[in-house]
Amino acid sequence: VPALLILSRRAGDYHDLVAAARLPDLSIISTSDVATLPAEADACELVLGEPSLVSRVLERLRSLRWVQATWAGVEPLLDPSLRRDYLLTNARGVFGPLMSEYVFGYIIAHERLMFAKWAAQQERRWDPTPPGRLRGRVIGLLGVGSIGADLARTAKHFGMRVRGYTRSSASCADVDEYFHGPSTGSGPSRGESRDSASLQSFAADLDYLVSVMPNTAATRHLVDETLLAALPPRAVFLNPGRGSVVDEAALARALGEGRLAGAVLDVFQTEPLPADHVLWRTPNTIITSHTAALSFPEDIAPIFIENYRRWVSGQALNYRVDFMRGY
Amino acid sequence: VPALLILSRRAGDYHDLVAAARLPDLSIISTSDVATLPAEADACELVLGEPSLVSRVLERLRSLRWVQATWAGVEPLLDPSLRRDYLLTNARGVFGPLMSEYVFGYIIAHERLMFAKWAAQQERRWDPTPPGRLRGRVIGLLGVGSIGADLARTAKHFGMRVRGYTRSSASCADVDEYFHGPSTGSGPSRGESRDSASLQSFAADLDYLVSVMPNTAATRHLVDETLLAALPPRAVFLNPGRGSVVDEAALARALGEGRLAGAVLDVFQTEPLPADHVLWRTPNTIITSHTAALSFPEDIAPIFIENYRRWVSGQALNYRVDFMRGY
Repeated sequence: VPALLILSRRAGDYHDLVAAARLPDLSIISTSDVATLPAEADACELVLGEPSLVSRVLERLRSLRWVQATWAGVEPLLDPSLRRDYLLTNARGVFGPLMSEYVFGYIIAHERLMFAKWAAQQERRWDPTPPGRLRGRVIGLLGVGSIGADLARTAKHFGMRVRGYTRSSASCADVDEYFHGPSTGSGPSRGESRDSASLQSFAADLDYLVSVMPNTAATRHLVDETLLAALPPRAVFLNPGRGSVVDEAALARALGEGRLAGAVLDVFQTEPLPADHVLWRTPNTIITSHTAALSFPEDIAPIFIENYRRWVSGQALNYRVDFMRGY
Repeated sequence: VPALLILSRRAGDYHDLVAAARLPDLSIISTSDVATLPAEADACELVLGEPSLVSRVLERLRSLRWVQATWAGVEPLLDPSLRRDYLLTNARGVFGPLMSEYVFGYIIAHERLMFAKWAAQQERRWDPTPPGRLRGRVIGLLGVGSIGADLARTAKHFGMRVRGYTRSSASCADVDEYFHGPSTGSGPSRGESRDSASLQSFAADLDYLVSVMPNTAATRHLVDETLLAALPPRAVFLNPGRGSVVDEAALARALGEGRLAGAVLDVFQTEPLPADHVLWRTPNTIITSHTAALSFPEDIAPIFIENYRRWVSGQALNYRVDFMRGY
């Protein structure tokens, strides 16, 4: 009988959801506290858990064969000092709607002057300043995977024009105009191979730039001084994706000098963002503390359940992570 | 040659948009200042304008035959002391997308704890409090006309469950469940004829209640003590519609006593909201100063242009207002 170890701050919810699926031949150990993990957990072949917790027990799991991460980001498991002799799958396909709520909520907040009107209200001041609207605005998506496709669909719902920057094929019908970076080829792309001319054309005249790029060598500091300089001063940058994609010093300079109208930042190179970090005191910046697209157990458990069925019947698992590529 | 009088704070934009349509046989006088209206304006047969400006010159217009209002609300022209010997058409069919941006922007702001996270940021405090999400939430639409239908479509886009309360037919496919008030019959409905049982069922278990009812005798104080008491304490009330629909004292009491989680209010019985009004100091209340769905000339001018073509060809005009019914 395969044994499953559940490691999550919401272990109870995951336990209930997996148990309710009545999977054949599965015993479950679940905990939210790695420190008190029982010895029999060491024999588990399967793990469903948060990468930051799983990484702490990885070396103990002598029979490990498969880890289903409850997050999209698996960075804690990609540390080169850690073992890679198991299958790693992550969570995908469920974050698009949450990302849409985040991105378009904050875009509307910007157009609607929500925080300015809130400030006026604190002074009991009637503030009829006309807000803007989404229709006709141009949004540029850095990355057009499943999350980007969901953002594109919501942007079209609101009548926006959609540009997509991707190394992949132009398969999303909700993207009006595609711009292409270099394709991956057989190995990992290098930062220096990015196509600057294509990025510049992509950025020109954007009202909103949204990064949903994965964290790879090729995407590191893709949002740099050059890309930021190509944006018009009315543009707002939103990053619900990965902190490594942004040159934070260059972003803070652009905002500080008014070369950019605003930034909405969920992720950072170092989290929690250190108290003395320049971005806490950069104008027109909103910081949302890595909450843009949390993993809801009711979304993630079905991914494990489907993959478990594939596992026992010998089929390939969904959402397998390539340790070399990093996603 | 018919003469058109344009009366709007954005008279220049309207003039340019109408002139660009090269309508046959039309001369145009336009102004944003009623006080300096030239004498030849008095002979205009047609008016395109803001109801609050049009009402001030109505008695002077000796050849008046048709007024195209630039707003949806025509209350200033419904004063019983004013003439009604002309055709009145208003603006419809263009406010749905703006209303959607407003309603779902503030719903996301509520779920995402936007103002609490903003306050945390002012203290440079990392705030990972998990936000909620729209999927699965229940929204109740008071009124399912063209604006309600657009709200329903956006609610479904975000995976919400949609209830509609209307006196009309159940024709919107994006509404999951309809609740019916009394039908209008031949005359104006009276407030006392509303169907309380149906309203109570509609309100039970709503996460969000949105009023997009017109201002009529039948809708006056539809959102009263009884309806508010039928909502669960987690519910948020949004009113981008008409201020007359709300019993403001009852709403302030419900919010003050925590029987309602919040209110997002764009319209009020008296505008601007007086500085000593209780709603300025009611907890969990957001006041947006009648900016939810402004008239953009690029949306409204095409309504006039289409109606003018109908006018010269003898067809019935779109969006005619019934002075008795009030909309």
